Amino acid sequence: MELDFDKMGGLVPAIIQDAETGKVLMLAYMNTIAWEKTLETGKAWFYSRSRDKQWMKGEESGNVQIVKEVFVDCDDDTVLLKVEQVGKAACHKGYTSCFFRKIDGDVKIIEEKVFDPEKVYKK
Amino acid sequence: MELDFDKMGGLVPAIIQDAETGKVLMLAYMNTIAWEKTLETGKAWFYSRSRDKQWMKGEESGNVQIVKEVFVDCDDDTVLLKVEQVGKAACHKGYTSCFFRKIDGDVKIIEEKVFDPEKVYKK
Repeated sequence: MELDFDKMGGLVPAIIQDAETGKVLMLAYMNTIAWEKTLETGKAWFYSRSRDKQWMKGEESGNVQIVKEVFVDCDDDTVLLKVEQVGKAACHKGYTSCFFRKIDGDVKIIEEKVFDPEKVYKK
Repeated sequence: MELDFDKMGGLVPAIIQDAETGKVLMLAYMNTIAWEKTLETGKAWFYSRSRDKQWMKGEESGNVQIVKEVFVDCDDDTVLLKVEQVGKAACHKGYTSCFFRKIDGDVKIIEEKVFDPEKVYKK
């Protein structure tokens, strides 16, 4: 399966969905290395644009994502991973999902925090 | 709510999820105009990179997406829309979801076609 990494300068977006609840947890980007490592290891790897390197989701927090199913879209330029989210939280701000805010007139936080980022991530 | 359009040269990715089934239907991109039109009209608008213009999803096929809920991610650079998918198919290839292929050893089509694209789209 060859993905189209050219359309976005070497990256494809990866949507991460909780395999059990169906909740969309996050979106991140993969370069070819992160994509290959994800398929090889069965854990989600991404490419960080700000740090310019691939990383395994959860390598610092312990909240790794165990890949259950992998889907590719019609244009070969986006992937969807259904995962088991270890620690029940994907967001570096401590929430289950990165989409913990809803636009409803104004912007409302609609989830409870699962962990305290200050205690999980090194300063 | 100000989104961060700068990180990707004027675009943010938008994940589209079926509000009723929880199925992830597609990923597309929004520029500021598409984002504003989505919020104003309650229907999903996107920006086409290949055609360099915004468009309303379903404007040709009739398969519009009626927006039920809008979420923003922790970095303000991705949105998640829960929608009612008119016509029960989001993919221009005739499937419910653009993620109609699963990687399982090789690549397998795991959905039935809902419509015939040749009958729906102009040549």
